[in-house]
Amino acid sequence: MLASFNTASGWQNLPPLDSDNGLVACMTEPKSQNITFHDAEITAQQREELLGQKGCVLWFTGLSGSGKSTVARRVEQKLISRHIHTYALDGDNVRMGLNKDLGFSPEDRDENIRRIGCVCQLFAESACVTTASFVSPYRGSRDSARALVGDGFIEVHVATSLEECERRDPKGLYKKARAGLIPNFTGISAPYEEPLHAEIVLDTEAHSVEESADQVIGYLEANGFISP
Amino acid sequence: MLASFNTASGWQNLPPLDSDNGLVACMTEPKSQNITFHDAEITAQQREELLGQKGCVLWFTGLSGSGKSTVARRVEQKLISRHIHTYALDGDNVRMGLNKDLGFSPEDRDENIRRIGCVCQLFAESACVTTASFVSPYRGSRDSARALVGDGFIEVHVATSLEECERRDPKGLYKKARAGLIPNFTGISAPYEEPLHAEIVLDTEAHSVEESADQVIGYLEANGFISP
Repeated sequence: MLASFNTASGWQNLPPLDSDNGLVACMTEPKSQNITFHDAEITAQQREELLGQKGCVLWFTGLSGSGKSTVARRVEQKLISRHIHTYALDGDNVRMGLNKDLGFSPEDRDENIRRIGCVCQLFAESACVTTASFVSPYRGSRDSARALVGDGFIEVHVATSLEECERRDPKGLYKKARAGLIPNFTGISAPYEEPLHAEIVLDTEAHSVEESADQVIGYLEANGFISP
Repeated sequence: MLASFNTASGWQNLPPLDSDNGLVACMTEPKSQNITFHDAEITAQQREELLGQKGCVLWFTGLSGSGKSTVARRVEQKLISRHIHTYALDGDNVRMGLNKDLGFSPEDRDENIRRIGCVCQLFAESACVTTASFVSPYRGSRDSARALVGDGFIEVHVATSLEECERRDPKGLYKKARAGLIPNFTGISAPYEEPLHAEIVLDTEAHSVEESADQVIGYLEANGFISP
C-alpha cells in the first residue's frame, strides 16, 4: 500500500489517522527520509536540550489566602526576567475558559483538577516551567496530577496556617464562610488534606513573597530544571 | 482592611480569591511595592518581548489524510531548530488526556474543539508558537477558536483534495468509510466545511512536506511572529 504514495515529496509520512474522526490515534512512527529529526515527533528531551530548560510543573497547593498565586506570579516574573519560558495557570485563566462548564460539586471539582493536570502535562512536555495555583484540597487529585506529569511534578505546599489566612482574608471570604454564607469552604467547612511529601514547603508567615519565590527558584536550580 | 496585612513582606498582594473555592476570580490588580514588574501578572506583550517571539496558533484544518499533522510536525522541528518555543497539539496528546472523556457525538465533537481552542489560547498567551492539527470540519467551531485566540489565530487550510486523501489512505480508513464501516466520516458521510478566509492555504499535491512547512514558516516571519 505504501508504494502508492508519493514518497519523493515526503507524504508517505502522513499521520495514520486523525483524532477527531472517530478513531483512536495510532502511535506508529513515521519513516521520513528528508527531515533533520528522524522521528516526526520531537521528544521532550530533544526539546529541552534545544531550549535549555526542563519542563516541569510547580503545583502550588494551600488554603485560600495562603499566597499560592502571589508566590507563583513572582516566580513567573523572576523566570521571565531570565528569559526562561514559563506560564502560570490559575483560576483567572482556567475557570473562565477551559473549565467554564464546571461547577463546584465534588465531581466537577475533581474534573476541574483532572483537566488542569492534563493541561499541565502538555505545558511540561513543551519544556515550559509551569506553575499551577489551585487550592486543590484533595491528596488524591494532586496525586493524579503527579502521576500524569511524572518526574517534573513539584508539589509546593504553601503551608500558611488557617489562622493567618483568616487574618489576611483579603476579600472577607473567611468571614462569609464563618457566617455560613459560603458552603464547603476549604479549611472552614470542607477539609484540606495536607501534602505528606511535598517537594517544597513554603512558610509565608516567616518569609516574604520575595524569599518564598527565591526558595522555589533555588529548588529549580538545584534540581536541574533551570541553569543557576 | 488592608491595614491588617503585613505590608512589609509583600503579602498584601494576595490574590483576592481562589479559583477552586467556589467563587468567580476577581480581576483586581494587586499593588505591589517590592517587585520589578508593576503588575503581578506579566502581560502577553511583556512575555513576548522578553522571549523574542509572538504567541500564536497555527490551526491546521483539512480532511483525514490531507497532511495536517505531517506539516505541523515539520514546522515544529524547524522552529525548535531555531530555538523558538513551539508545541504541537493533535489527537495523540489531546484525545488520550484532556479529552479522553469525550466521544464522537456532535456535542462531544464541539466540546472537543472548544477545549482545544481554550488550551490553544493558553499556549498562545504563554508566547508559544502553537500548532493544532485537527480535522475540525465545522466552520463554526473553527471560528470560535479564532475568537478565543484573537489576532494570533492563523487558519491553515490543508486543501488536499478528497481524491488525493483517499488515494493516500494510509490506514485504509476511506476504504472502510466507503464500505460503511465508519459512520460519519468526514468527506464521505459527514460534511467538511472549507475555510472561506484561511490565512494560509497549502497545496500538498503540488508541493512537498518541506515546501509546505517552509510556506508556513515564511508566513510567521512575514507577519512578525518570529524573526526572519
